[in-house]
Amino acid sequence: MDDLSGAVSSGEHELGTAVQEAWLDDRELEVVRGRVPMVYVEAVPVRLDEVGQVTHVGLLLRAMADSTISRAIVSGRVLWGETVRQALQRHLDKDLGPSAFPRLPAAPAPFTVVEYMPDPTRTGYYDPRQHAVSLAYLVAVEGECEPSQEALDFVWISSEEAASAAVSAEMTGGQDRIVRLALAYAGRLP
Amino acid sequence: MDDLSGAVSSGEHELGTAVQEAWLDDRELEVVRGRVPMVYVEAVPVRLDEVGQVTHVGLLLRAMADSTISRAIVSGRVLWGETVRQALQRHLDKDLGPSAFPRLPAAPAPFTVVEYMPDPTRTGYYDPRQHAVSLAYLVAVEGECEPSQEALDFVWISSEEAASAAVSAEMTGGQDRIVRLALAYAGRLP
Amino acid sequence: MDDLSGAVSSGEHELGTAVQEAWLDDRELEVVRGRVPMVYVEAVPVRLDEVGQVTHVGLLLRAMADSTISRAIVSGRVLWGETVRQALQRHLDKDLGPSAFPRLPAAPAPFTVVEYMPDPTRTGYYDPRQHAVSLAYLVAVEGECEPSQEALDFVWISSEEAASAAVSAEMTGGQDRIVRLALAYAGRLP
Amino acid sequence: MDDLSGAVSSGEHELGTAVQEAWLDDRELEVVRGRVPMVYVEAVPVRLDEVGQVTHVGLLLRAMADSTISRAIVSGRVLWGETVRQALQRHLDKDLGPSAFPRLPAAPAPFTVVEYMPDPTRTGYYDPRQHAVSLAYLVAVEGECEPSQEALDFVWISSEEAASAAVSAEMTGGQDRIVRLALAYAGRLP
Repeated sequence: MDDLSGAVSSGEHELGTAVQEAWLDDRELEVVRGRVPMVYVEAVPVRLDEVGQVTHVGLLLRAMADSTISRAIVSGRVLWGETVRQALQRHLDKDLGPSAFPRLPAAPAPFTVVEYMPDPTRTGYYDPRQHAVSLAYLVAVEGECEPSQEALDFVWISSEEAASAAVSAEMTGGQDRIVRLALAYAGRLP
Repeated sequence: MDDLSGAVSSGEHELGTAVQEAWLDDRELEVVRGRVPMVYVEAVPVRLDEVGQVTHVGLLLRAMADSTISRAIVSGRVLWGETVRQALQRHLDKDLGPSAFPRLPAAPAPFTVVEYMPDPTRTGYYDPRQHAVSLAYLVAVEGECEPSQEALDFVWISSEEAASAAVSAEMTGGQDRIVRLALAYAGRLP
Repeated sequence: MDDLSGAVSSGEHELGTAVQEAWLDDRELEVVRGRVPMVYVEAVPVRLDEVGQVTHVGLLLRAMADSTISRAIVSGRVLWGETVRQALQRHLDKDLGPSAFPRLPAAPAPFTVVEYMPDPTRTGYYDPRQHAVSLAYLVAVEGECEPSQEALDFVWISSEEAASAAVSAEMTGGQDRIVRLALAYAGRLP
Repeated sequence: MDDLSGAVSSGEHELGTAVQEAWLDDRELEVVRGRVPMVYVEAVPVRLDEVGQVTHVGLLLRAMADSTISRAIVSGRVLWGETVRQALQRHLDKDLGPSAFPRLPAAPAPFTVVEYMPDPTRTGYYDPRQHAVSLAYLVAVEGECEPSQEALDFVWISSEEAASAAVSAEMTGGQDRIVRLALAYAGRLP
């Protein structure tokens, strides 16, 4: 681990002075991932009706860490020096595009904590690359979503459908369960 | 209680078929208030910054049930047949005006439950008229607030100031404590 | 759910000066129930393992307000002058017996709010007698449960089974959904 | 906070196959700490009365990362492969002794998320060694606490006193604020 270099990548540079994370190349990130749990955030994008009730869940279609093409929620790493809110905003912007206008929740407490492990039998949440502790938030989205170049598609699915076995079967790593937990938190699990 | 009449008031009428509460005149409401706890909702209006962090708390200036003129949050009764969300929306509309555009939270769970009692020593929350169980929510407000005819004023106060002893001294019935609990929930209590 | 009509029970008497609810006979309670929403509490009894994880859900078998014999969670009215904690304790004692040793949660916020309506299509939670706003809590139970004389049976069911369609079919009024929401809150919904 | 550098302790060894964290010597941990945020847990130990209400907060007296001797809550790192619950249990055992009998909460969601930064002006939570994202839980403790050899003292302080300016002045890094947020979550902030 001697050669963890100090250059700042362009990606982090955009965050300005808030994030001073040293550059981690692929090999270095892999080494760190084997030493300590990574901090992640998950955002379940939702549409609300006029009295704040969840009507739809937004799902991406993308290539996943487990090499499948699956429906997915917004999920990503918190960088060194970045706040949880900044990380949420950054991943939402990247995945849903600049016109999504996500409304980050006022409270810092997530609705659940997801523990991804390389061993799928440990917690039911699976990531072959790492142990990640992920803070999961429900995020109301008011604008129009355009999936980023990394995603193949983005769809709004009714809350009933989002909890169905058919949609669950299209998700991996336990993200279908995060969607059901999000719907339960919103009082909208069928 | 024989003469609890059945006429529907104009106030409830506006809610349409959702609310079929029988008309309660002042004396009848007083009788019911002595028999069962009333269901209430509280809304702490807040301004958020671009990453969802609370920056300001909105406070009304109004005549209170305890005959004082005090700073106050939005608070009111849930009517028979009315959902908690409808009640929140109705009281926010009434107190903050039609251009406030409050964002009701997606989750039905309040951040705290407030128990008003006619005996001020019971819970620290005091209402001389009744025992009320009140569900307290943080509500982001994006539009312009115009206090209703019942309120004398409406101001946005910074989150630091809202938790101060000076502002607390201008509130009664324990509402200053609700504001501090709301700020703590939002991670913004100094 | 409880039948709180009639003379003041010994259970209420024990609460002493805390509860000064006026006597409500059957007819009066019926009248009040048609005028204002009732305040209720629900408790989902759970067994935890040594690190606090839910392993089992406790379900009563009892005659319900809708005239069915169903599996049920602990549920009952908050009396005038009674705190939410006192009501929870009273209903848990009555339904699970004196050796249950329920651990009431430290936080006053329920994990969800349930709105029972006489119209089953309004919220999905149904009570033919009334509009009730119910605060739902997860309650760890460490002792032995003996169902009261009003209940026919009490069983501990694994968290997986408790969320199953088979067990859900044995519950009415939407209480199966409360169980699933409780499991989701505990991170244990399959 | 704990010092987890150095050889694998007997504490980690007891976790058996659950934790397979690679050995991190002092220098390696320091390097990793400068690259990614660390995952931490905080536990605010509390005494509850018979209806679950917080009456006292437990505070350690110890040497802190900022070189002060301060009052402190239980706080420590989540190891690679360790679940959040296991980490909580391990740190509670280490800091409060084997007879504390802490009751871990059933829900995985913390009451707040604390973001420690080496720059004290960023979030108000300060750790000179690292950026740590810490999940904060309220933990009811029923047994007797014996501070570990690392702590100089352990005391139970009334909830009113715990929120006072005098006690806050004896805490560092923002932990006094975590105590106030915990009390607010429990509805017990004065």
